[in-house]
Amino acid sequence: MSGTTFQTWQEAAKTKRDQRDSLIPKEYLLDDKSLPPLDQLQVVDFPSRSGKLSQLEIEITEEDDVSVILGKISKGVWKATQVLEAFIKRTCIAHQLVNPLTEIHFEEAREQAKSLDEYFERTGKTFGPLHGLPISLKDQFSFKGEDTTIGYVSYIGRKAPKDAVLVDLIKKAGGVPFVRTNLPQTLMHGESFNEIFGTTLNPHNRLLTPGGSSGGEGALVAIKGSPIGIGTDVGGSIRMPAAFCGLFGLKPSYNRLPYEGAVNSMEGQESVPSTLGPLTRTLSGLVEFTKAILGQKPWLYDPLVPEIEWNESKYQEVKNRKLTIGIMWDDGIARPYPPYVRALKEAKEALTASGHEVIDFKPYKHAEGFAILGAIFAADGGEDIKRAIEPLQEPLGPSVSGIGKDAISVYEYWQLSKRKVAYRKEYLDHWNRTSESTSHGRPIDAILCPGSIYTAQPLGSEIYVSYTGQWNLLDYSVGVLPVTQVDPKLDPKPETLPEPLSEIDEKFYKKYDPTAIVGAPVGLQVVGRRYQEEAVLGMTSVVHEAIQEHRRRT
Amino acid sequence: MSGTTFQTWQEAAKTKRDQRDSLIPKEYLLDDKSLPPLDQLQVVDFPSRSGKLSQLEIEITEEDDVSVILGKISKGVWKATQVLEAFIKRTCIAHQLVNPLTEIHFEEAREQAKSLDEYFERTGKTFGPLHGLPISLKDQFSFKGEDTTIGYVSYIGRKAPKDAVLVDLIKKAGGVPFVRTNLPQTLMHGESFNEIFGTTLNPHNRLLTPGGSSGGEGALVAIKGSPIGIGTDVGGSIRMPAAFCGLFGLKPSYNRLPYEGAVNSMEGQESVPSTLGPLTRTLSGLVEFTKAILGQKPWLYDPLVPEIEWNESKYQEVKNRKLTIGIMWDDGIARPYPPYVRALKEAKEALTASGHEVIDFKPYKHAEGFAILGAIFAADGGEDIKRAIEPLQEPLGPSVSGIGKDAISVYEYWQLSKRKVAYRKEYLDHWNRTSESTSHGRPIDAILCPGSIYTAQPLGSEIYVSYTGQWNLLDYSVGVLPVTQVDPKLDPKPETLPEPLSEIDEKFYKKYDPTAIVGAPVGLQVVGRRYQEEAVLGMTSVVHEAIQEHRRRT
Repeated sequence: MSGTTFQTWQEAAKTKRDQRDSLIPKEYLLDDKSLPPLDQLQVVDFPSRSGKLSQLEIEITEEDDVSVILGKISKGVWKATQVLEAFIKRTCIAHQLVNPLTEIHFEEAREQAKSLDEYFERTGKTFGPLHGLPISLKDQFSFKGEDTTIGYVSYIGRKAPKDAVLVDLIKKAGGVPFVRTNLPQTLMHGESFNEIFGTTLNPHNRLLTPGGSSGGEGALVAIKGSPIGIGTDVGGSIRMPAAFCGLFGLKPSYNRLPYEGAVNSMEGQESVPSTLGPLTRTLSGLVEFTKAILGQKPWLYDPLVPEIEWNESKYQEVKNRKLTIGIMWDDGIARPYPPYVRALKEAKEALTASGHEVIDFKPYKHAEGFAILGAIFAADGGEDIKRAIEPLQEPLGPSVSGIGKDAISVYEYWQLSKRKVAYRKEYLDHWNRTSESTSHGRPIDAILCPGSIYTAQPLGSEIYVSYTGQWNLLDYSVGVLPVTQVDPKLDPKPETLPEPLSEIDEKFYKKYDPTAIVGAPVGLQVVGRRYQEEAVLGMTSVVHEAIQEHRRRT
Repeated sequence: MSGTTFQTWQEAAKTKRDQRDSLIPKEYLLDDKSLPPLDQLQVVDFPSRSGKLSQLEIEITEEDDVSVILGKISKGVWKATQVLEAFIKRTCIAHQLVNPLTEIHFEEAREQAKSLDEYFERTGKTFGPLHGLPISLKDQFSFKGEDTTIGYVSYIGRKAPKDAVLVDLIKKAGGVPFVRTNLPQTLMHGESFNEIFGTTLNPHNRLLTPGGSSGGEGALVAIKGSPIGIGTDVGGSIRMPAAFCGLFGLKPSYNRLPYEGAVNSMEGQESVPSTLGPLTRTLSGLVEFTKAILGQKPWLYDPLVPEIEWNESKYQEVKNRKLTIGIMWDDGIARPYPPYVRALKEAKEALTASGHEVIDFKPYKHAEGFAILGAIFAADGGEDIKRAIEPLQEPLGPSVSGIGKDAISVYEYWQLSKRKVAYRKEYLDHWNRTSESTSHGRPIDAILCPGSIYTAQPLGSEIYVSYTGQWNLLDYSVGVLPVTQVDPKLDPKPETLPEPLSEIDEKFYKKYDPTAIVGAPVGLQVVGRRYQEEAVLGMTSVVHEAIQEHRRRT
């Protein structure tokens, strides 16, 4: 099948979509009566109540802790095939509720799980550190012989010559890739809609987006159709879905994890490269995954991965001392919605109660950073996107790109890169100068800030990605943790709006309506310096534990 | 003083040059009778015989081993001020022989050395790991309040607002920056001539270039006017001067050492970034310098430096086991000159005699790599260079750049980057596949190859930089070691030329004339994977020691 054999983009998209749907086993399809009514907004737990899952399958899929899943398989309590079938079933039901899937690989996954069980029976050992763990991947990570459309109709039929390095390393670690998930056309948008696979919804509130561009992962992992998913992030595409879907997420620094062989939009844009990382329901999953990949020396397979091994002592060190956290209450451009302020206040109280030092962190010229980031993304004048949609003239959706802008010259692009590096230097110095505001004279360990300006929004809303894009520009490593959910009583709209910081501030603050986003998760970002993934994971755990401990006490 | 106050480039350049010359103390000037005649080509040892240096100063400046110099200062045998004065004297004499200097910082250096001696007397301890070591730097590394022209007339008068991070870290380690050194206009050339400071000559043979672009360092360190110099390398600019001047050199992977605050041509070109590294007369200097900088966590001051600490065990590990070295006899495009083949053969014999495994390494599509590299350097159509020479209309010298070519679009530039990454992936796989050719089934540890196609050439010769530029494109870490010198008896021109590999091969092979390059050093490159600086330094030492041992035995 190749896109060029179709006359229209509609025909191509429908054929592809029908193929996907045909891979959902009939016995897992729910009829209209069995499906929840459309106005049932929260569907996270529906699969467990659907009557389709056995008690064991409910137990398996509701186990949020990846370490526990791995532990049970490695002790022989659960078989890899059992775990896979449970998630296959749940993912099929989930798909009928929130539409997260693109490519379905159940047969290959079943074969792999079977051979893992055989290996375990034969040797009494696991095949690798992710033995038997079903893993979903954003539809950028190529599977040999399969399509990777990244949501472009014209990419239908492009069969990958080989597995992406990440897919290969997941399999070598015993992980079981079983589905790929939805994303927005161009990948440069904060929702997850494209003309092939349609719109993914947020299982916490189906009127809302799960975010994007890794929105399929956000939705699928939140509804427990997958224990862990792999997304990518060039401006917030792991962190917005994590924050909007109540998940933990990790956005590493450039190329810490191997992107080689994945498909992307705007390929060759190396000034602010996209990075990949996991989303999951407890922190353990982030750690297990990152260790399993780094343990295989990905730099031997991906020429862009720097040789930085997993450093366990950096992970442990931050968990065993008093941290100093700088809270960034807003980005100086536009204030986050009230639920984020509530989450930050709770985190501050909790961290202080646990003996950590908390100071205010002032953002440094984020408007300039955002302008640089936007100019980099737009540098080709949208040429890359134009070429992708041109063959079948599919409609162009919204995106952060150069569409409608003039391309700049390579010389200007180099000047933009200079400006970027200068800004990164200024920000580094700014971070170092926090030493003047701490009790001990050392700089902060991390910045704690909102996961975005808004929580999950109604579908089709305008986006603003500076809260996340800032850290892509600086290449800082960032963890996301879920803190709370929107509650109109706790998060009322202020009767009088404060003096706006900017037009953007005014626009978004005016739009704030807690009744429209009931139950939307509220996640925070823990921002570390570059290549501090281990410390960031440890600190994300510290913030999470401090909040849990604080809630138990109060 | 500012470039804009001058009417002509000649006037500006002469004024600047005169200022430099005025900083050479009169007592160190040699009159025409005292200077060697112009046809005395080899002048490496002339300073020691000039009558200007005391016995102690001769002893100090002829000490090639940086560790010995540091040791003597740290034991109080030599004072920092004594060592500095010896090198100041020798550098002044050297300058009159081969013209390596651009900016002269004797007064600041004297103050610093004095305070280091005071510190040592007061505390009995050294100030840092480079305590009292005079260091020369290529004229890209900014000194606060001073010019950094990088050889452009129009840059005269551009005072740096602060020290480059590297300069700062050198000083914090106790190193004493005392002069800056010459380079070619545009930095993209293999000699070291510019309209301000003129031409630097090779002290091993003054008819020849010391190479470029770090040719000032190559010449100055070779004539022992400085114990160690810092160069930069985007296509061979550390390694060609090292190889052509008989020095050890290190070209690290991108941003391993901090470039922040240095001036460059084509700034913002991030696709193949220039890297910086040391040149010195024994391997110890490379190790001392690299450890001293990395020990100060340069990632806290330079936003592009990845956090990779000095790894001593990687350095030691390769020195304590049998290595497997792949010899690349030629690059598949053009054969190296006969002295390189002799050097490679000697290295092969020596390594084999020492129990190491040596196999042939086949280059992988270097012509494609060279085309990609050239296209990246030319992507702006020479706009950056045009703007630099435009203000005073200085003449444009030769360079590897986009001058005379059409600029490409940003979209095309991104496609070029894609092609680059794909090529890097292919090369990584190619390296991994050397496991099929080794006795143990593991890939090679390093590639050993010529330092260039030619040894130091007569001034004004055509250049060919693929032997070095290849490793910039791939971002491999590379060490250079000196092996021998050109000897027309040992390195005769073959009476019949072999079948040429290409037009380039034919052209350069025809030009080969050992009698024109008598005494030119012959250096080899030891090429490791990315971010393998420690291992590369260790392996460079192993190759050097094996050759020395072999010579003692035979």
